[in-house]
Amino acid sequence: MTDLPTESVDLTWVNGRLTPTPEAVVPAGDFGLLYGEGLFETMRARGGRIAYLDRHLERLHRSAGEIGLPLPGDEELRNGLAEILAAAGEGELRARLTVTRGVAGSPEAPANVPPTVMITVRPAAPPPSGWIACWSPYRRDEASPLSRVKSTCFFLNLLARREARARGMDEALLLNTRGELAEGSLANLFLRFGDRLCTPPVEAGLLPGVTRSVLLERAGEIGLSAEEVSLAPEDLCRADAAYATNSGVGIVPITTVEGRVIGPATADEVLEGLRSLLWRPGDFQTP
Amino acid sequence: MTDLPTESVDLTWVNGRLTPTPEAVVPAGDFGLLYGEGLFETMRARGGRIAYLDRHLERLHRSAGEIGLPLPGDEELRNGLAEILAAAGEGELRARLTVTRGVAGSPEAPANVPPTVMITVRPAAPPPSGWIACWSPYRRDEASPLSRVKSTCFFLNLLARREARARGMDEALLLNTRGELAEGSLANLFLRFGDRLCTPPVEAGLLPGVTRSVLLERAGEIGLSAEEVSLAPEDLCRADAAYATNSGVGIVPITTVEGRVIGPATADEVLEGLRSLLWRPGDFQTP
Repeated sequence: MTDLPTESVDLTWVNGRLTPTPEAVVPAGDFGLLYGEGLFETMRARGGRIAYLDRHLERLHRSAGEIGLPLPGDEELRNGLAEILAAAGEGELRARLTVTRGVAGSPEAPANVPPTVMITVRPAAPPPSGWIACWSPYRRDEASPLSRVKSTCFFLNLLARREARARGMDEALLLNTRGELAEGSLANLFLRFGDRLCTPPVEAGLLPGVTRSVLLERAGEIGLSAEEVSLAPEDLCRADAAYATNSGVGIVPITTVEGRVIGPATADEVLEGLRSLLWRPGDFQTP
Repeated sequence: MTDLPTESVDLTWVNGRLTPTPEAVVPAGDFGLLYGEGLFETMRARGGRIAYLDRHLERLHRSAGEIGLPLPGDEELRNGLAEILAAAGEGELRARLTVTRGVAGSPEAPANVPPTVMITVRPAAPPPSGWIACWSPYRRDEASPLSRVKSTCFFLNLLARREARARGMDEALLLNTRGELAEGSLANLFLRFGDRLCTPPVEAGLLPGVTRSVLLERAGEIGLSAEEVSLAPEDLCRADAAYATNSGVGIVPITTVEGRVIGPATADEVLEGLRSLLWRPGDFQTP
């Protein structure tokens, strides 16, 4: 199966069984399906390796602890990823790892059953050159534990994104219930003011993305001072540049918000530097 | 299959196929599983009929409109319900009807594919005599469209409920982001002050339950004046009685909140009257 052309790769691994995605099934009684009791990670892959796999697994463990979701051993997750990537071949890929509670009987007092593990691999889309954004009417509840984890209760984010598209925009930006900037529907946000690179703290009600953590750590390498700081929606209009970050897509400049141009109307010379911090060959790890 | 003993009934119908629940499967690519894009209704059934079926279908349509979820025709839903109830036989049952987006390709721009319809039937549990309750640390976001629909993004409710049980309680009560009383984790709430029966309005960030709508309409028959009114958490301690309502369980008195007894420590003579308003023989409708 290593000869499959990458553009047609669409494979799914469910609890040890690898098939083309259209043939993959899960039990109808899975609590992921019935109640949204599940977590997922979306990861960039190439050549059988996954960018920042250790960080993704660490976040998965932290999130599972936060909501009380039992996880299988890392060995099982790594074996599944290795198997599906071997079948998917070369090329730029996106892998999604989903773990749900499984078929656990009583929703109030779930039985101790094996979780459902599902991995899907598809070709990565080419990176967009920029996103035009709008404000979403929906809010992140910074008091909810689900605001800090990548839960399969993801639909409000999708709805925000689809409504942005229906308005001819690419991405929707969400505030929290205190009116602070939280995140995009599918991405974390960074604002650049000169050589300061700012992103809202986790307490603002956002998912701490892996790409976000890499940029916070490495921004100093290109002379930027990175910090987590509470941001107001008005700060977007004052920024020299705004970036959306997402583990599948990378770093995407946000060019306008509700039609208002962000930053000076010149090419952002920092973008390439930021992109050079991400997805270095050594960042891709063998499962 | 009509001879199955009711206590062992556990059937699932998925897109026209009826099987014992353990054999039922859905595609792994279903957006209900991947993103929590789905709605459900939990209904009381007996003798092949469903209590308030028309109201449940009406709510499903209203909810689907709210989040843009395509529904199959009512004919298909009714046929599925009739088929599974015929197989389940007599006895008190709970039916859950779930509709998800299906396998829709792009999450941002879903394809126009048939939704997944899933119906499960199980024996109804005997009604609890009362629930002891606690306050949940989680909030209902009254600004979210998901607060008003029974979405499969249901996990925060479950988490609240499980945490209540871990504290030795039965039910968790949730406030909204303005600090007003919203609902229980699995039920609507009513407070009784003398002959006034009060429940928070939908704008407080709650799912307008079918049992709730029946009580609002019929309370006058037993001399109560029912109203939707904003309630504060302190109002619970002033009430003569508090009730949780849920289409699967019916009407359950809430006896204490965080250990504090609600109402006078005498039997609530109104409870039986309220229960007489619900699940009348004529309320059960043939699918």
